[in-house]
Amino acid sequence: MTSWVTSSNGHPDFPLDNLPIGIVSPAGGTPRPAIAIGEQVLDLHAALEAGLLTGAARDAVETTGATLNTLLARGTAVRHALRQQVVAILATGSTAERLSHRLLHAAADCTLQLPCAIGDYTDFYAGIHHATHVGRLLRPDNPLMPNYKYLPVAYHGRASTVRPSGAPLRRPNGQRKPASDPVPSFGPSRNLDFELELGIWIGVGNGIGEAIPIAQAADHIAGYCLLNDWSARDIQGWEYQPLGPFLAKNLLTTVSPWIVMPEALTPFRVPAMARDAADPPIFSYLADASDQGAGGLDLALEISMLTPAMRAQSLHPHRIAKSNARFLFWTPAQMVAHHTSNGCALRPGDLFGSGTISGPDKGQEGSLLEMTEGGRAPIALPTGETRRFLEDGDTVILAARATNGRTSIGFGLCEGTVLPAPGSA
Amino acid sequence: MTSWVTSSNGHPDFPLDNLPIGIVSPAGGTPRPAIAIGEQVLDLHAALEAGLLTGAARDAVETTGATLNTLLARGTAVRHALRQQVVAILATGSTAERLSHRLLHAAADCTLQLPCAIGDYTDFYAGIHHATHVGRLLRPDNPLMPNYKYLPVAYHGRASTVRPSGAPLRRPNGQRKPASDPVPSFGPSRNLDFELELGIWIGVGNGIGEAIPIAQAADHIAGYCLLNDWSARDIQGWEYQPLGPFLAKNLLTTVSPWIVMPEALTPFRVPAMARDAADPPIFSYLADASDQGAGGLDLALEISMLTPAMRAQSLHPHRIAKSNARFLFWTPAQMVAHHTSNGCALRPGDLFGSGTISGPDKGQEGSLLEMTEGGRAPIALPTGETRRFLEDGDTVILAARATNGRTSIGFGLCEGTVLPAPGSA
Repeated sequence: MTSWVTSSNGHPDFPLDNLPIGIVSPAGGTPRPAIAIGEQVLDLHAALEAGLLTGAARDAVETTGATLNTLLARGTAVRHALRQQVVAILATGSTAERLSHRLLHAAADCTLQLPCAIGDYTDFYAGIHHATHVGRLLRPDNPLMPNYKYLPVAYHGRASTVRPSGAPLRRPNGQRKPASDPVPSFGPSRNLDFELELGIWIGVGNGIGEAIPIAQAADHIAGYCLLNDWSARDIQGWEYQPLGPFLAKNLLTTVSPWIVMPEALTPFRVPAMARDAADPPIFSYLADASDQGAGGLDLALEISMLTPAMRAQSLHPHRIAKSNARFLFWTPAQMVAHHTSNGCALRPGDLFGSGTISGPDKGQEGSLLEMTEGGRAPIALPTGETRRFLEDGDTVILAARATNGRTSIGFGLCEGTVLPAPGSA
Repeated sequence: MTSWVTSSNGHPDFPLDNLPIGIVSPAGGTPRPAIAIGEQVLDLHAALEAGLLTGAARDAVETTGATLNTLLARGTAVRHALRQQVVAILATGSTAERLSHRLLHAAADCTLQLPCAIGDYTDFYAGIHHATHVGRLLRPDNPLMPNYKYLPVAYHGRASTVRPSGAPLRRPNGQRKPASDPVPSFGPSRNLDFELELGIWIGVGNGIGEAIPIAQAADHIAGYCLLNDWSARDIQGWEYQPLGPFLAKNLLTTVSPWIVMPEALTPFRVPAMARDAADPPIFSYLADASDQGAGGLDLALEISMLTPAMRAQSLHPHRIAKSNARFLFWTPAQMVAHHTSNGCALRPGDLFGSGTISGPDKGQEGSLLEMTEGGRAPIALPTGETRRFLEDGDTVILAARATNGRTSIGFGLCEGTVLPAPGSA
């Protein structure tokens, strides 16, 4: 199918096959729900006013203002209906084309907002190669914890510091204690890092005390984004015992602001990661044949960097790693089922991070910690510069794309630039 | 000073000296802001309609509906003004007495709501005797982690499962692996516990990247409550490596629903816990002479239990521990300064837990884990029953009271009852 929005036909990220939803502020306008289509965005309030939406989809858009929480709360059937009506509006031959000046904004003129008011943000640890790489730095012979293949390990993150792509990262101050120092000192983090993750947006929630069965878990997922879990490794190393990461992780979490709907990713579903023969069986509350058969995602991921020196030489961002969402040991549905297995309540607009997604090989690491082996083996950049960890002015760009012979779906940008610590030059 | 609300004069919890603020639903009414006074509550919307509030206090109440977030966001000066006007309304001799039928509801007829929409909930670990007791179970010779006296250890909790006193606790299912079992099993937690904590409500927030200096940190605290951080110890022991507690802690967090304002606690301020000569110096971002001199609280704490057998015998709840907020190693102001030292944003209505507050002696433990030495030494109850951990039907009641020769201030109830696991009898 093609669209009368010609920039979308063959667009690598936002063809008619994608149609991610988000909250945009057009130049001078208030935040409103919108759908990305090529180099344009479809203003859903304008579509509503033009009488192009009907039924449950109309009701959902009518009650949606500056956040998508209430829309996501309506669940899969309403999302399907909205998606079908948007396809009808944008497909070649639609009579809506004559209203294009009212319906569309140039994406370049819009500010992308955080799509939801995030009630809670949970960060999983489902990237098994990342867990293995990081574990090996500490425990060379036994890198994975005993619980790793029994349950999707996770911790609670900070909702107040999740921001859309483009938000700067102020280098944090904190207590750091290199192994060589007898006592900690307080000052700017010296080991600032990124983490490449898949973000998962929750749609319909659950009541406290009510577990979501694994067979229904996928229905509670409203969509996906990219997520950069910026991390200060030196602060983390000193603070994290015994209750886990805190200030090392809550400085900023960057998400790509479009929510890519599960429907757009259906062609890219793959089996969940295969288990080794020696792995434990999956507990029944996490086991579902359909999830095991198609709960994985074949989604190519990339990390690029742009340094001040590269910028001065007008160089393009340099790709430093390639990975894939196939490298997740646990599926998003398993994360939902595990998270609620004790009765914990999820709410519409809650955000999960998948955990850092690294591949098994060199060049597939999702963090500098892994690429540089804890800072011991700096990476080289095209300028001749090297990096152990991030320096001020460095920009990190995450990208995701699913492609097959027929189409290509992208997630849009997830980027951020490091600013000097407060009080620094 | 006395009040024309005669039930408040000499009331052990809610005399005119206290005046905690909360959100109540009177019988058949919508949630609204209110102040506890003896056995009554003052309806702040009714006071507004009666023209009894002026200036900034009036504006703050006018824009407050079912949550106190926007009111707390106005900060200390507005809270002071509101408090002074409420004292004028309720003091003996006030002409407002003639409006009492409009202004007051019987507390017994009101449902107490969660006072704020909680953006983020952070749980600290500042009870040094608790950290020592728990650490000793694992590391008898070296119970405290090396970072403990350098920084207030904390982790992020779950905002979606914080509930006001009275909410039941459904015993959670989860993966448990006793040391004696070779592999984990999934089922109801067998080691369900409570934790006695002080809750701290944030008033004015801070922007991302902007640390709150220790000298200003107390100004960002809007008030206090009791907090029970219900914990499933067996789930915790298996899941928590390497990222900290998750499903063991997010099943339910109970708070006492009245926010006790800092002004009410001024007479009960004491110096921060004294440091040993061998303790490290306090980093400057956590050190403030006025906080060290008066940042502690002399607040008596109690834990009581009521079992089904005690209920059948019409017994009163049985006190199982006495503690005091003086046993916190870090002050609430230090928690605020540390939490924001990396630029992490706090928002009005955010909630902190202090960490479990145990005293150094027997009978002062803030959790069953400590009282029973990890479940090895059951406690005895008046019925002849014993408890290693909580059983279905058990009610846990936390209470806090500050007293001196002149007055007594209480926090109100913080209680919850254990229900059987889903699918159990």
